[in-house]
Amino acid sequence: MKQESINALLRGVADGSVSVEEAEEKLKTLPFEDIGFANIDTHRSLRTGYPEVVFCEGKKPEQVAEIMARLAAKNDNVFGTRASRADYELVGEVLPEAVYFDDARIIAVIRDPVPKVRGTIAVVTAGTADIPAAEEAAITCETLGNTVDRIYDVGVAGIHRLFANLDRIRAANVVIVAAGMEGALASVVGGLVDKPVIALPTSVGYGANFGGVSALLAMLNSCANGVGTVNIDNGFGAGYLASTINRMASGE
Amino acid sequence: MKQESINALLRGVADGSVSVEEAEEKLKTLPFEDIGFANIDTHRSLRTGYPEVVFCEGKKPEQVAEIMARLAAKNDNVFGTRASRADYELVGEVLPEAVYFDDARIIAVIRDPVPKVRGTIAVVTAGTADIPAAEEAAITCETLGNTVDRIYDVGVAGIHRLFANLDRIRAANVVIVAAGMEGALASVVGGLVDKPVIALPTSVGYGANFGGVSALLAMLNSCANGVGTVNIDNGFGAGYLASTINRMASGE
Amino acid sequence: MKQESINALLRGVADGSVSVEEAEEKLKTLPFEDIGFANIDTHRSLRTGYPEVVFCEGKKPEQVAEIMARLAAKNDNVFGTRASRADYELVGEVLPEAVYFDDARIIAVIRDPVPKVRGTIAVVTAGTADIPAAEEAAITCETLGNTVDRIYDVGVAGIHRLFANLDRIRAANVVIVAAGMEGALASVVGGLVDKPVIALPTSVGYGANFGGVSALLAMLNSCANGVGTVNIDNGFGAGYLASTINRMASGE
Amino acid sequence: MKQESINALLRGVADGSVSVEEAEEKLKTLPFEDIGFANIDTHRSLRTGYPEVVFCEGKKPEQVAEIMARLAAKNDNVFGTRASRADYELVGEVLPEAVYFDDARIIAVIRDPVPKVRGTIAVVTAGTADIPAAEEAAITCETLGNTVDRIYDVGVAGIHRLFANLDRIRAANVVIVAAGMEGALASVVGGLVDKPVIALPTSVGYGANFGGVSALLAMLNSCANGVGTVNIDNGFGAGYLASTINRMASGE
Amino acid sequence: MKQESINALLRGVADGSVSVEEAEEKLKTLPFEDIGFANIDTHRSLRTGYPEVVFCEGKKPEQVAEIMARLAAKNDNVFGTRASRADYELVGEVLPEAVYFDDARIIAVIRDPVPKVRGTIAVVTAGTADIPAAEEAAITCETLGNTVDRIYDVGVAGIHRLFANLDRIRAANVVIVAAGMEGALASVVGGLVDKPVIALPTSVGYGANFGGVSALLAMLNSCANGVGTVNIDNGFGAGYLASTINRMASGE
Amino acid sequence: MKQESINALLRGVADGSVSVEEAEEKLKTLPFEDIGFANIDTHRSLRTGYPEVVFCEGKKPEQVAEIMARLAAKNDNVFGTRASRADYELVGEVLPEAVYFDDARIIAVIRDPVPKVRGTIAVVTAGTADIPAAEEAAITCETLGNTVDRIYDVGVAGIHRLFANLDRIRAANVVIVAAGMEGALASVVGGLVDKPVIALPTSVGYGANFGGVSALLAMLNSCANGVGTVNIDNGFGAGYLASTINRMASGE
Amino acid sequence: MKQESINALLRGVADGSVSVEEAEEKLKTLPFEDIGFANIDTHRSLRTGYPEVVFCEGKKPEQVAEIMARLAAKNDNVFGTRASRADYELVGEVLPEAVYFDDARIIAVIRDPVPKVRGTIAVVTAGTADIPAAEEAAITCETLGNTVDRIYDVGVAGIHRLFANLDRIRAANVVIVAAGMEGALASVVGGLVDKPVIALPTSVGYGANFGGVSALLAMLNSCANGVGTVNIDNGFGAGYLASTINRMASGE
Amino acid sequence: MKQESINALLRGVADGSVSVEEAEEKLKTLPFEDIGFANIDTHRSLRTGYPEVVFCEGKKPEQVAEIMARLAAKNDNVFGTRASRADYELVGEVLPEAVYFDDARIIAVIRDPVPKVRGTIAVVTAGTADIPAAEEAAITCETLGNTVDRIYDVGVAGIHRLFANLDRIRAANVVIVAAGMEGALASVVGGLVDKPVIALPTSVGYGANFGGVSALLAMLNSCANGVGTVNIDNGFGAGYLASTINRMASGE
Repeated sequence: MKQESINALLRGVADGSVSVEEAEEKLKTLPFEDIGFANIDTHRSLRTGYPEVVFCEGKKPEQVAEIMARLAAKNDNVFGTRASRADYELVGEVLPEAVYFDDARIIAVIRDPVPKVRGTIAVVTAGTADIPAAEEAAITCETLGNTVDRIYDVGVAGIHRLFANLDRIRAANVVIVAAGMEGALASVVGGLVDKPVIALPTSVGYGANFGGVSALLAMLNSCANGVGTVNIDNGFGAGYLASTINRMASGE
Repeated sequence: MKQESINALLRGVADGSVSVEEAEEKLKTLPFEDIGFANIDTHRSLRTGYPEVVFCEGKKPEQVAEIMARLAAKNDNVFGTRASRADYELVGEVLPEAVYFDDARIIAVIRDPVPKVRGTIAVVTAGTADIPAAEEAAITCETLGNTVDRIYDVGVAGIHRLFANLDRIRAANVVIVAAGMEGALASVVGGLVDKPVIALPTSVGYGANFGGVSALLAMLNSCANGVGTVNIDNGFGAGYLASTINRMASGE
Repeated sequence: MKQESINALLRGVADGSVSVEEAEEKLKTLPFEDIGFANIDTHRSLRTGYPEVVFCEGKKPEQVAEIMARLAAKNDNVFGTRASRADYELVGEVLPEAVYFDDARIIAVIRDPVPKVRGTIAVVTAGTADIPAAEEAAITCETLGNTVDRIYDVGVAGIHRLFANLDRIRAANVVIVAAGMEGALASVVGGLVDKPVIALPTSVGYGANFGGVSALLAMLNSCANGVGTVNIDNGFGAGYLASTINRMASGE
Repeated sequence: MKQESINALLRGVADGSVSVEEAEEKLKTLPFEDIGFANIDTHRSLRTGYPEVVFCEGKKPEQVAEIMARLAAKNDNVFGTRASRADYELVGEVLPEAVYFDDARIIAVIRDPVPKVRGTIAVVTAGTADIPAAEEAAITCETLGNTVDRIYDVGVAGIHRLFANLDRIRAANVVIVAAGMEGALASVVGGLVDKPVIALPTSVGYGANFGGVSALLAMLNSCANGVGTVNIDNGFGAGYLASTINRMASGE
Repeated sequence: MKQESINALLRGVADGSVSVEEAEEKLKTLPFEDIGFANIDTHRSLRTGYPEVVFCEGKKPEQVAEIMARLAAKNDNVFGTRASRADYELVGEVLPEAVYFDDARIIAVIRDPVPKVRGTIAVVTAGTADIPAAEEAAITCETLGNTVDRIYDVGVAGIHRLFANLDRIRAANVVIVAAGMEGALASVVGGLVDKPVIALPTSVGYGANFGGVSALLAMLNSCANGVGTVNIDNGFGAGYLASTINRMASGE
Repeated sequence: MKQESINALLRGVADGSVSVEEAEEKLKTLPFEDIGFANIDTHRSLRTGYPEVVFCEGKKPEQVAEIMARLAAKNDNVFGTRASRADYELVGEVLPEAVYFDDARIIAVIRDPVPKVRGTIAVVTAGTADIPAAEEAAITCETLGNTVDRIYDVGVAGIHRLFANLDRIRAANVVIVAAGMEGALASVVGGLVDKPVIALPTSVGYGANFGGVSALLAMLNSCANGVGTVNIDNGFGAGYLASTINRMASGE
Repeated sequence: MKQESINALLRGVADGSVSVEEAEEKLKTLPFEDIGFANIDTHRSLRTGYPEVVFCEGKKPEQVAEIMARLAAKNDNVFGTRASRADYELVGEVLPEAVYFDDARIIAVIRDPVPKVRGTIAVVTAGTADIPAAEEAAITCETLGNTVDRIYDVGVAGIHRLFANLDRIRAANVVIVAAGMEGALASVVGGLVDKPVIALPTSVGYGANFGGVSALLAMLNSCANGVGTVNIDNGFGAGYLASTINRMASGE
Repeated sequence: MKQESINALLRGVADGSVSVEEAEEKLKTLPFEDIGFANIDTHRSLRTGYPEVVFCEGKKPEQVAEIMARLAAKNDNVFGTRASRADYELVGEVLPEAVYFDDARIIAVIRDPVPKVRGTIAVVTAGTADIPAAEEAAITCETLGNTVDRIYDVGVAGIHRLFANLDRIRAANVVIVAAGMEGALASVVGGLVDKPVIALPTSVGYGANFGGVSALLAMLNSCANGVGTVNIDNGFGAGYLASTINRMASGE
């Protein structure tokens, strides 16, 4: 029962064509989503231009193309994460406006860009091998309307590079720190800045890094305050959370 | 070499009593912190009233009392987390203005309260057993100048209680979700609100919860976007991060 | 807004004292649980006599007593699991009708017993050390209206004892198998009976049993079909699930 | 010694051609299964039409085909789980009546269908990626005579979709909930329905999901009652257990 | 139905007082253990003097005393492992012939000693801290009729001590090697002797030894051949297995 | 310094051409292996016909062929475990007498067979998927001179098949039990036989079996006595240990 | 601001063209690395000839070639670890002086060799399968100017081979011990030598070795003193640490 | 056969009273340790003054006192690690010269101090809670003759404190870095110094630090080169290894 229906029902009550008891009964047994429960619906649909997101890994290119085409029929903006170039090639055939970000492994169809937010998000990496996860975060941030300042390869083994960039990092509203191996960079940055830090552990490393667990544990156990952690290699999640914060920090 | 000394050195150069080469040499070999490197110093000292924090667990009451007294001699505000009532009793002898928060297990000495921030932080728990971790977060938030809205015992096994409180949760700038066992509440809340969600896994549960690992993994793997996770039972960390975000979101 | 209120609102529409638009608006912004959403409420409240449950472990006896007293003021039946005798002694002071089951570590206040179900639930243990978890399951089953057949200490190291009791096990509608160490009994029973088997791993053992993980993994990996597993030592959960199945199997 | 033989032996005793001592000796040293120990035999052979099951993963197509052909020579119904299309193609050559279920990865040879049971089993998934495990469960249920109601992609990140389908879920005798990542859906459903819930963790996810461990732990630690868990991705096991329960619930 | 009953039944058939059909029916529905199924019974009862064993850890002294008294009423020999001195004191009151082995934490009631076996079992430890587990093994071996040669504190950090005792180790039929920490001794011994080696990991160590897991993994991964491993600290299991082998090796 | 050299040295002392002090010094500083230290040498070289063993997994076929050829130049018997057919093909070119065992994945070059031992080793598997590990054990046993009785596919899900073969299992001197998944068979067999049982966990299974860990833990935690465990899928290790025991049990 | 600039600034102060206040302000706000902060810079640039290092695993050959070419434009010496032959072939096209070490999987471009250090580093392996990790360490040591003594395949299963080489091992300043499986060799060597031992766990093994965790834990838990451990298969790290020690031990 | 005996034997050969063959035979069959195999003996006995070490944790004070007294009867210097004050009090009764180090939990009996080494060892901690492990290392170093420079509480959350002490750290021959939680300090220090760094993970932290595993993994995965790791809280091991290096670096 859509809002129109509720309106019609109430009109029926008002004009006497529907009894109060009958109306009461109908209201109580309505299927859930039909009571005009827009406030239960997820918030995403409330914000213009936020893309629908497809996790492409583990799907075949044809499947990715089909899903993205279906979503693009109803949404202005569609986003594919963990997408291969092969995925992109098939998607491009059906959605020529699709763009592919190599490092980020993201396919983006953006017809109605999200309005720009004022503040900046810094995306920092320990090494060059952390760049794919960082780019997934950065492209996500940019697509959601944020300005991103990329500061890559400033890990603690050569900490002077980090300090040389401290002013840029401190100028941001939110800092995403992507690091694998021992994940120490998140704690060092967390100790140096006064803004929310989102720790993004990456699976970079070998031996006893256990696919990113060493960095994940280090970040969860950070001795610095103000650090929140996302899942291993979850650049999209880090970017989304950073966007949510930056939007608020920018007063929007 | 303090700033005065640099000034003196430069004055020596200006009046010819110090040669350029001599001055150059001294500047290059200065101990690090003396070059006026205020910008390397941690941000905490820059913000009036932020308390120094002591982690009390594993320390004897006498040690806690001694450390807090020493810090209180130099700082207006001091904070002891994971403190027992026995800790508090000894602290109270040397710092009579100390206050103890039972559920939060926090001892607070606040002589110069942090100025109030406008926005609200919602602290939500799945069960009553999650309240200690949640209170540690809530008292931290309040001490750092935030207004907290506590919404306790609204776990997914009786999800109607959560929905009944959705408006309050949505009214906050940041939401902290404390949950043990399967930690599902973080994902459910993350799917319903449009604000940053800080997931606070608790060690509540038994059997294969492994001291909170079940909730931690669930939160890291949340299918909802915009969720950042802190360490198990780390209420202080969750509260600190939420404060950082709320302060920015409130335009301060 | 309770059902009476909806009725009143509709009557207002009917008699013209409330406009259709006004009524529509009110309905859309109602707090969730007030729209007569009884069907969202958990099922537990729908079934007469099902007790409210308190997990007592980790709470002080005074807390247990206070919580159970408060629940008993509103509910006929209240149930405390993982309760110590010390818990019981304090509970008994405020709720003299409380009964304590030693092995099961359960405190039960049953003023309006759940009606009896026809079928039987077999509770089987590998060793005598598994009896506490098994009794927690058995007392739960009995309190929820089921007849329980206890078959204890029939582990696979002396498998003839199991076979000697096979007819009793096969006569049940549901079989709960509690076992620690290598947990092999669940698979053996699962291969011998044609009914749902609920595997209840216990923390019994030492060395590389890791607090019940060895039994848990064995049960999850059971080569027998028709086996569902609950958490380590979760006798209450096993008993509750068995009751749900037995009630249906008994046509109730 | 078959039952006929026992009969013959006893007749020999009766007519004096076999001495009592001789008969006693023979009875005591009989090979196990020959004493008419049908009641030791597994229950599966007692139920007409229950298929023999082959786990195909890790076997070569030729091996799968050979095993299924051999079983089909003695059984009306044969079932291959975790089968690839390549497996099916070879099986189809020797057993033309074989049917392949793509999503479920099941090859079924059903010559004598299991009689229909009255009640319904709901199979619910959190996301589309959980469908293969869910389909393995669903096809298993259907093959074992049950009616299945599929309710897919109703995960907690968009919980209104779950509520919109609550009536269908509540109408079932048993509910299978397939979810990966944080596995929260099992707890949410468990809190909303009054029937046995079988939690089926899937390996869907990445990073710290550890091949399904995050969902498995969440399900084992569910705060909702009445939930039994099967192994990760074990759709067949979930379906088999659900069938066993539904058969009983339907009074068969 | 005991053997006498089978005899009686057959006599009834022989003399015509029981019909063939009646006898056949009775035989088929006999409770399992009554058909003279001595061959299903565990082997332990077949060997004179093998003690019944009680695992005392986690039981209260009164419980230990009660259980051991009950077993001693039916068995000549009873054995309590992981027993405290407090356990022994209560046991001694009801069973004055009980003996306590301090290091082994074993209470033994031996009224009818197991006959001596010819060969020797060597029990070797890496350090002195491994002696409790080793003694549990050694006393078990001795109680089961074996001669034990104890060679303690010959770990690899001072490997010359091991070599000095190599002849004694090589003279044994079976070698039990108890070691904690890195468990290297099992591999070294396994490379030097030509007899079965039973590796007994102990929980000795700290830090990343994880309660004996480091030694357990080392022993399972031994590069030496002919090594079988038992559970962490399971001295009784090691001793029992060694006894089984030595008895056979000694031609008994 | 070889034995000849010692002899020469001593002769020098005898004829006065070498002083006592000089000889003493030389003896003390001899390289280790040259003092005729046959008793330090591993036992393997002492037993005629025991093959040298190559672990082929992870080596390229050319490497396998080269290593086996080199060993075969000095040893009568050479053994390659975890060998692929491709390995065998190259080995066969250089060692035409090499034999390949498909299931066991073993290449054997046996020119001087190990003399036969009297007793029998039973190799038992839970399922057909455990056969590769079991065959690796069985072929190892046979190559080392033992008679093997294979009893395959008698897992606990259909336990009557195990009982039907109990006499054969009990007739063996040693029993190897290969099982994956929940590994319950080892405990069941251990409870039924009076001989050493070697538990061989296999990596068969999926989901939470963690590559054989579920079976490994179950076997280490076996409630049956007299069970020793080897590494996951280590059929060679199980076979070697069983051979060592059987040789002794057979009085050789 | 480079050192020249500081000099220029001071000259300006000296000649009055820059005021003291202006100079002070500039010094305080200098970008970090420009204050002549050579002492913050990493030590590597201070030592002539130390190569820049590229971790090649997980990069495509083209990427490896491009990175190494770029580094070689600025550095005399460049080092690629975990490099495949395919990587080398592309690198060789752009850097014809590149050399490839097969076992070590290292590409080295050395135009200005590191000066030779006097002392020796012993690199010891348990088996031949540990050689790749050991060679990575050995080539690293040699490239950094050390003499390496390789002592391979002296594992504890045939410990006489180790003793035969003890003098060579003891002659080294540092000993690297590479071992997989149970990693026992590190403890045995640690007990026999009086020099720093660097334990290098390798991923060699199968079953419950968990990719090298068994060896890693064994090494961390070594009962021998003076042992430091590096990550699994981290030959480069072991070689680098050994070089640092040997350089100091050699008085350089 | 002691050296005297070899001498006697050779004299017998020289004077003809022993034949060459007889002497050869005796030499070959000597018990191992009697051939003057001082070079097999551990190195510790070769260095004057190195103390014997007792691990006191888990032993009763009486046991500690007895063991230390026994060792002190034969050794000048004895060392007890992980000793409680209660241990010390009993030890002090029998060994009045014993000294107790509170933070380090070490009892030391030093009658003949190890000669001083020239270089310095820096012991650095991240927080004050890491001091016990650091002191165990520091006291070990000092007892073994080294000068220690303690630089405590310079963790990465306030990294300026570390930089302020960089010169002291760089002046040392070896650096021990003790850190719990995320263990980041080891990587930061490793990137800043040109000397061997020994990473000492501590069990400081809570939640997902798993008793020090988070710090241990971080240290093993350090992106800085030249870092060797010891077991969690193994201050003695770190100190011993540092001493071995410093002794060599100091040319002794």
